[in-house]
Amino acid sequence: PAFKIAVIPGDGIGKEVIPEGLRVLDAAAQRFGIQLEYRHIEWASCDYYAQTGKMMPDDWKDQLSGMDAIFFGAVGWPDTVPDHISLWGSLIKFRREFDQYINLRPVRLFEGVPCPLAGRKPGEIDFIVVRENTEGEYSSVGGISYEGTEREVVVQQSVHSRIGTDRVMKFAFELARQRERKEVTVATKSNGISISMPWWDGRAAEMAKQYPDVAWDKQHIDILCARFVLQPQRFDVVVGSNLFGDILSDLGPACTGTIGLAPSASMNPERKFPSLFEPVHGSAPDIYGKNIANPIAMIWSAALMLDFLGNSEGAGRAAHDAIVKAIETVLAQGPRTPDLGGAASTTDLGKAIAALVASD
Amino acid sequence: PAFKIAVIPGDGIGKEVIPEGLRVLDAAAQRFGIQLEYRHIEWASCDYYAQTGKMMPDDWKDQLSGMDAIFFGAVGWPDTVPDHISLWGSLIKFRREFDQYINLRPVRLFEGVPCPLAGRKPGEIDFIVVRENTEGEYSSVGGISYEGTEREVVVQQSVHSRIGTDRVMKFAFELARQRERKEVTVATKSNGISISMPWWDGRAAEMAKQYPDVAWDKQHIDILCARFVLQPQRFDVVVGSNLFGDILSDLGPACTGTIGLAPSASMNPERKFPSLFEPVHGSAPDIYGKNIANPIAMIWSAALMLDFLGNSEGAGRAAHDAIVKAIETVLAQGPRTPDLGGAASTTDLGKAIAALVASD
Ligand SMILES: CC(C)[C@H](C(=O)O)[C@@H](O)C(=O)O
Ligand SMILES: CC(C)[C@H](C(=O)O)[C@@H](O)C(=O)O
Repeated sequence: PAFKIAVIPGDGIGKEVIPEGLRVLDAAAQRFGIQLEYRHIEWASCDYYAQTGKMMPDDWKDQLSGMDAIFFGAVGWPDTVPDHISLWGSLIKFRREFDQYINLRPVRLFEGVPCPLAGRKPGEIDFIVVRENTEGEYSSVGGISYEGTEREVVVQQSVHSRIGTDRVMKFAFELARQRERKEVTVATKSNGISISMPWWDGRAAEMAKQYPDVAWDKQHIDILCARFVLQPQRFDVVVGSNLFGDILSDLGPACTGTIGLAPSASMNPERKFPSLFEPVHGSAPDIYGKNIANPIAMIWSAALMLDFLGNSEGAGRAAHDAIVKAIETVLAQGPRTPDLGGAASTTDLGKAIAALVASD
Repeated sequence: PAFKIAVIPGDGIGKEVIPEGLRVLDAAAQRFGIQLEYRHIEWASCDYYAQTGKMMPDDWKDQLSGMDAIFFGAVGWPDTVPDHISLWGSLIKFRREFDQYINLRPVRLFEGVPCPLAGRKPGEIDFIVVRENTEGEYSSVGGISYEGTEREVVVQQSVHSRIGTDRVMKFAFELARQRERKEVTVATKSNGISISMPWWDGRAAEMAKQYPDVAWDKQHIDILCARFVLQPQRFDVVVGSNLFGDILSDLGPACTGTIGLAPSASMNPERKFPSLFEPVHGSAPDIYGKNIANPIAMIWSAALMLDFLGNSEGAGRAAHDAIVKAIETVLAQGPRTPDLGGAASTTDLGKAIAALVASD
């Protein structure tokens, strides 16, 4: 039976990298015997907003609910639509309403990608950030008191549920168990945020008991950020709350020079709802229309999608590995888009990677 | 009239670096005609806790209230006293009860200090993090519901007051105005933390109106952390909430290789209460007792203290500048403690810097 994929280009370079993502998906699907059925969607874009005054049709949830995954380009066009409307009207809605409670972002140092850290070798940095993606610090609970006066005070609550916390811890420990090093680092700030974070540490300790084969420790977010810069080779699986995961999953790619190459998977592991796969980069209005955007983040996201669809086993895992290997080869040998010092187009890169995936 | 300084060595290497801090303070005071009167205090240490069962005497506040500043070594000895007791029983109490609402941490790349970022030159990175130090995410408001059940949920509130926010913004803009580049970067996360952070942005915009000569922008904490690694030369004054400031003021020193050299000033600018000056590093049980700890963070903290006492003017500013210049010289030319590859002792460094300050 075919997997159903909703394809949403969104805005800007989202529209340029999606075709290359699909090109590589097709090559991988063909080679590994995976059936994919696409549904192309124009909404969840600022163009759609310009025409209709909303980011998505009212029945967006019905339209997407039968899908296995959403293959998403990028959303946002700040010149015409403020980010809080475009993002909260699409991406954040998907995460919340489709209970995509795991956000996964691999961090790797590749040959051919200039690294901002001194003296680091490809292969030396290879970890993954697991972010809680639906609750915690991103609650909508709170408000302003004594508004407009001297006494004005704003309150925003962080709300962590046991169910929401345990499931992300469980995911991180399961993931670590599958990896070679089998190590989990839990981001915390229990020495400063004195109610929620000690509780969070307690949930981690409780979950860890079930994984005696996995080594774990907790590190305060301030020191953890410092260590991403100073000792990035030390990490395997890093798990954090919504806010801490957000910070770490931008800082990690920054440390490997791959912020423009990083993929992101927002997943509902139970598959009750579609999961979403997208590049971390945005719609990049400044380079849109020139066919020079680097499509690797989109293509890497395709690999994560196939891995997820195949339960990290069999054809899905093989397709993932083949795509990542092709990305490695192209980064090391070219062609290169202008962001990495080359003159190749978005299309050139998509074709080169698809050819490697098809033939290898 | 003499400035009254409470000297609190605390634990571990705090006891080794304090004498070197005092040595340099004395040299600077003598040269620039500043009167300092010390009061040596044994409490706020884990030794005191071992003897009395508490970190400080009941009348600690009375004992310290008449002081102009607290010159603090380091606190903590996790083998015998858990951090939440030692830290919250001393340092965090000082910050809160003495309304030390500004935490200041300079970030600089020095000659002679290996930088973890590739290709950066001394002088290229030179900014300062201004952290709100008393409220925000470090509130003690919240609790646990349905404890011990499936439905368990923990809530912790971030509470930002207008008074508390405006005063840190004002400090940051005033500071920027005194500096050459006159730029403020406001750390935010208004695209995710949707109540408190848009409000925080609004307070920044309001304050900025009064400083048309200062350029400012706001950056989301995730991207801001990435930019500390990728473009650290872009920053001048960076202001953040308690949590964001905590993260940035560890990450900044990490990016310049100076996490062991970084000083910290927790200040009550109105001088209603004593301000506190301390190294960022902790008590370092692993190297205590060998006289090899690097005293530069303590000595740099002494410089910040003199600058504060002198209102960043006259003799105080001159003494600050002379100490920082002596630190620069010693970092570039030695002597060096083992952490920087040398064989000098804590005392050697203190003497070398004091001599430079005295003679220069
Ligand atoms: C020890 C801890 C509570 C403290 C903080 O988060 O404020 C520390 O990280 C610091 O920055 O001084
Ligand atoms: C746009 C913003 C709300 C979002 C987040 O903070 O989750 C982004 O930074 C991300 O990481 O996908």
